[in-house]
Amino acid sequence: MNKIAVIGGGASGLLAAISAAQEGADVCIYEHKDRIGKKILSTGNGRCNFTNLNQEPIHYHSENILFPWRIVKKFDIQHTVAFFLKLGIYSKNRNGYLYPQSDQASAILDVLRMEVKRLGIQVKTEAKCKEISPVKEGFLIRTEAGDFSAQKVILAAGSMAAPSSGSDGSGYRIAESLGHRLVPVLPSLVQLRCEEGFYKGIAGVRAEGLVSLCVGGECYAREQGEIQFTNYGISGIPVFQVSRYAAIGLHEGKQVIALLNFMPDFTEEQFLIFLRNRIETRPQKSAEEFLTGLFHKKLSDLWIKLSHINRTKIMQDCTEKEIERLAHLIQNFSTKVVQTNSFEQAQVCRGGIDTKEVNPDTLESLLIPGLYFAGEILDVDGICGGYNLQWAWSSGHTAGKEAAGA
Amino acid sequence: MNKIAVIGGGASGLLAAISAAQEGADVCIYEHKDRIGKKILSTGNGRCNFTNLNQEPIHYHSENILFPWRIVKKFDIQHTVAFFLKLGIYSKNRNGYLYPQSDQASAILDVLRMEVKRLGIQVKTEAKCKEISPVKEGFLIRTEAGDFSAQKVILAAGSMAAPSSGSDGSGYRIAESLGHRLVPVLPSLVQLRCEEGFYKGIAGVRAEGLVSLCVGGECYAREQGEIQFTNYGISGIPVFQVSRYAAIGLHEGKQVIALLNFMPDFTEEQFLIFLRNRIETRPQKSAEEFLTGLFHKKLSDLWIKLSHINRTKIMQDCTEKEIERLAHLIQNFSTKVVQTNSFEQAQVCRGGIDTKEVNPDTLESLLIPGLYFAGEILDVDGICGGYNLQWAWSSGHTAGKEAAGA
Repeated sequence: MNKIAVIGGGASGLLAAISAAQEGADVCIYEHKDRIGKKILSTGNGRCNFTNLNQEPIHYHSENILFPWRIVKKFDIQHTVAFFLKLGIYSKNRNGYLYPQSDQASAILDVLRMEVKRLGIQVKTEAKCKEISPVKEGFLIRTEAGDFSAQKVILAAGSMAAPSSGSDGSGYRIAESLGHRLVPVLPSLVQLRCEEGFYKGIAGVRAEGLVSLCVGGECYAREQGEIQFTNYGISGIPVFQVSRYAAIGLHEGKQVIALLNFMPDFTEEQFLIFLRNRIETRPQKSAEEFLTGLFHKKLSDLWIKLSHINRTKIMQDCTEKEIERLAHLIQNFSTKVVQTNSFEQAQVCRGGIDTKEVNPDTLESLLIPGLYFAGEILDVDGICGGYNLQWAWSSGHTAGKEAAGA
Repeated sequence: MNKIAVIGGGASGLLAAISAAQEGADVCIYEHKDRIGKKILSTGNGRCNFTNLNQEPIHYHSENILFPWRIVKKFDIQHTVAFFLKLGIYSKNRNGYLYPQSDQASAILDVLRMEVKRLGIQVKTEAKCKEISPVKEGFLIRTEAGDFSAQKVILAAGSMAAPSSGSDGSGYRIAESLGHRLVPVLPSLVQLRCEEGFYKGIAGVRAEGLVSLCVGGECYAREQGEIQFTNYGISGIPVFQVSRYAAIGLHEGKQVIALLNFMPDFTEEQFLIFLRNRIETRPQKSAEEFLTGLFHKKLSDLWIKLSHINRTKIMQDCTEKEIERLAHLIQNFSTKVVQTNSFEQAQVCRGGIDTKEVNPDTLESLLIPGLYFAGEILDVDGICGGYNLQWAWSSGHTAGKEAAGA
């Protein structure tokens, strides 16, 4: 029987192990931590947004841009939902974002564990993999729990994001020792740290807006949603979505600017008319009262200050220049990004094993026959919204099935 | 000039005062607490869901069923949005639920206060009204801050819900002393306390479901949404929506049952087929594993227990009777309601001043000319979702405008 070692018991490793075992292979999972699937529990704020009905190639990033979609298409959203339904997960749909109906991430992990048990897959925990050596008829796998052998190896050891859940980047070292090249690994889906001193004063505030991420003067990504201010910079879904471009720009030593528009549904001209009408309606309001009901008080105060308008000034006494300055600031709030948060805070990584050295149909190494890859360790990162888990399921399924020789 | 006393500086009192002053009246607000508008700050979880785009007569309850809608139509959603836009509130629309774009309830109160100031409305705080006496050419108003006189009085002293914000029911006593009859005042939009002992074990769990509220064997209301379990019973929006019927039933000494359906999209037959398929797919799962991914673990455990199925029993060994019992329990989870939570926890009250003794066009008392009513003090309660504030705005506007003689 075909003996397969799966390195890493996270989302992609579990799918790889289950898919291989369902094809009849003899599978063993080697997990670094004391239990499998730890990172799954923290996804979707503990509810596990396990995939998304809205699937397009642009939801997946890689240096090798056509690579991710080729794999996702083979085990797509329909396959994923059917796979989990068989295991017991009844889906709840929130605007296309799918969750288990129980709203517990532990349900996803529980059904995967039940399936692992049902299929007789071995699980060795606290068995950090130190080295993989190709030997005659397969591989020697050296772990902290002893040495093992297998005909095939699936490397699903994750990235460097959220290392406390087990993915500490050790998988990259193993792949490199076998000759694989890495696309630079950077934090993604992560908060951005900014230069300006005013963030402490607006920490905790949330506001709808459009984030444009500009690197070296060029705009790379635009995302609308709820921006969250922290005491060091910006956070929230739209910030996470553009963060990979900030990480790349900073890595390349370029200037990175986030441009925030808090009235994105208005053109600049429309917004100026809107503000002038607002002044005409209640001309006696002071500058500090003027934006109440439009923006959070702390943001309003900051904008009035940055526009150099005296807060007690009566609005009808403001000059046209002052109004234009205020309007421009609200729609073009520029902040200099100096750093992303670290791998500890990142949900995933941009970069990883260069997919040009991986078979895009089977996920087998083009350098080492019998070695397969699955999940985040590859140079693939999805956007927020269940896409990184979908990548784990799709790539895990293909690697497992192909390694089992199906 | 027409001098108007407004008793109560809450949502309806503020609208009444502003509407009267906009018509040129000389207005004074007498507020029980040390500041006005306190309850507004806690609405919509501090974000103030100030109205709702979806307006139908059935969203408003009263013994006098046609009364609320007649008033709401006169100052409807369009008037309300325009009124607040003039004051500075730019609306954010969440599925029809409107909030100030700043997501701060304080913005609603701030713009109302600015308008009060702009119009020169007097505000006397810590001026609890003790008595209103009709005198020649108007009224004598006895308050804890002294005695005052006015040609007209608008009684907007609120209900008994959330007394810590000022509405302690004292307005009812004043109305009764003037000859007005009360429809029994009961807590509404409130949690329900249930008899069964198992609630402590599922406290904190949330689950989508359909709540049917049955009084004396008859079903009075059905609402679907997220049910929240507490250590004493049930909570959450669908529970709030049906709670007034529970309060009335309990007040009348009848048996009150809440019937919870956790699979409302399935007929009983469909759900039974669904469960049988689920068993066939993974026949070796134990009873305690069987519902994982479908319902929260704590609920699943409770249902297995209440169905008298041994938790370690393999599902394919269950009898047809056991499966039917389990399916029936999940779709017809009956719980006996013994009490509503108190006025302290209630968002509003059911009942209040009988509207049959109030002019349905002007909100003037049919017993005491020159006395008007606005807001929750009247026998009107709306459902959750901005309807109670809409009632405050609509009734406040009409009472203020009519009292000013416009």
